[in-house]
Amino acid sequence: MATLTISSKNYSSWSLRGWLLCKMAGLSFEEERVPLDDPDMKAELLLLSPSFLVPRLVHEDVTVWDTLAIAAFLNEVFPQAGLLPADRAVRAHCLSISGEMHSGFVNLRSALPMNIKAHYPGFKVYAGALADIERIVAIWRGCLTAHGGPFLMGANPTLADAMYAPVCSRFTTYDVKLDAECEAYRARIMALPLMQEWIAGALDEPEELEELGAEF
Amino acid sequence: MATLTISSKNYSSWSLRGWLLCKMAGLSFEEERVPLDDPDMKAELLLLSPSFLVPRLVHEDVTVWDTLAIAAFLNEVFPQAGLLPADRAVRAHCLSISGEMHSGFVNLRSALPMNIKAHYPGFKVYAGALADIERIVAIWRGCLTAHGGPFLMGANPTLADAMYAPVCSRFTTYDVKLDAECEAYRARIMALPLMQEWIAGALDEPEELEELGAEF
Repeated sequence: MATLTISSKNYSSWSLRGWLLCKMAGLSFEEERVPLDDPDMKAELLLLSPSFLVPRLVHEDVTVWDTLAIAAFLNEVFPQAGLLPADRAVRAHCLSISGEMHSGFVNLRSALPMNIKAHYPGFKVYAGALADIERIVAIWRGCLTAHGGPFLMGANPTLADAMYAPVCSRFTTYDVKLDAECEAYRARIMALPLMQEWIAGALDEPEELEELGAEF
Repeated sequence: MATLTISSKNYSSWSLRGWLLCKMAGLSFEEERVPLDDPDMKAELLLLSPSFLVPRLVHEDVTVWDTLAIAAFLNEVFPQAGLLPADRAVRAHCLSISGEMHSGFVNLRSALPMNIKAHYPGFKVYAGALADIERIVAIWRGCLTAHGGPFLMGANPTLADAMYAPVCSRFTTYDVKLDAECEAYRARIMALPLMQEWIAGALDEPEELEELGAEF
C-alpha cells in the first residue's frame, strides 16, 4: 500500500496537486495528514512554497517528495494514466507550463492564498498579482487553442490541469473575473468529481488559520 | 541547430542551470542572449524566480522552457547522457531534491543572489537564510552518503548537480562556511570545466545590476 502525506485540504495547494496526481494515476493509497498546527506546516503555508514534508509519497521502496517529482514517478509506474501527454512536443508544453506554476507566480500565491471554504465577492486583487493572472490567462488560452480543450492538453486531464487546479479554486474564492473561455475552464475543473471530493474534505476540516496565529 | 535563450551569465542562476543541462546532455546549440536591461529580464532577476523567457530551448519542432521541463526533454532525446539516474529510486531522489530547489529556498535566493564576479569574505548571512543553508547541507550530505559521491547521485553528474550548481557559486561568493564534506563538494562543482567555462563568460560581461537601477 502506498501512503501520501498531505496537510490541510482547505489551505494547502501543494497537497491538492499531489493528491490529484495520485488519484488521476489510479494509485491505491492511504492519506497521512500532518496537522496544520505543526510548526513546519505553518511555515510551509506561510512561505507559500512547497516543503519536503508535503506532498510526500511512499510507494514500495521509493520515497518521493515534491509535486513534479511525484508526477514523473507516477507517470513511470502508471504510464497508461496519461499524466503526461504522449506526443513529445505536447509533453514539452505540458512540462513547461507545469514548471512555470511550480516555481513562479509568487505574487498570486501571496495575494490569493488557497482557502476553499472562503468566498469574497468583489475581492479587490492587489495590483502586483494582476500580471500573474494575466500570464495564467494567456497560458490557459494558448493551451485550449493549441490542443482543442476541454483540458489544457486536450481531451484528457494531465499534470498541467493538476498544477493549475488550485488556481481555479483561488479564482473561485476571490471572485476573479475571467473571459468566457477561461471561466468555462475554471468551472469545468471545479466540477470534476475528484475536485468535489477534495472540496468536501476541506469543508469538513475544523481548523482556521487565524486561530493558529497565521497572518495572511 | 538548437537555440538556448539565456540572460546574464553573472547573475542568472536559471540560465546557468539550463546551460549546464544542455552541455551535459551533449546538445549542440547556439546561445541567444536576452539583454540584462530588458524590462522582463530585470523583473526575472529581481523576483529571483524563473520566467518563461529564460532558459528557453528550441530544438527542431519543440519549444520548451522552464529548467525541469528542459531536463526532462533532454533526458528523452539524449538518454545516454544520464541526466537522470537509471535506478528508479535514485531517479526519484534526484527529482525530489531538484524539485525542492526549483520551487523553494526563497530566503537563500533573496539574501544571497548569484553574482559570480563578487566575493564577500566574512559575509554576514541574514538569519532567515540560515535554515535554507542548513537544509541544503542536509540534502548534500544525505546524497553523498547514500550514493557514494563524488556527485550528488553518485559517480556521474546529473540534473541534481546542475540544480545546485548556482548554490555552489553563491556559497563561494558569500564565503559560506561548510563542513569538510560539503566544502569539498562545492569546490568540486566550481572546478568542473563546464563551470569554469561559464564563469569565464560571466567575468567577461560588462553589465552591473547597480547601474541598471536594480535593488539587491
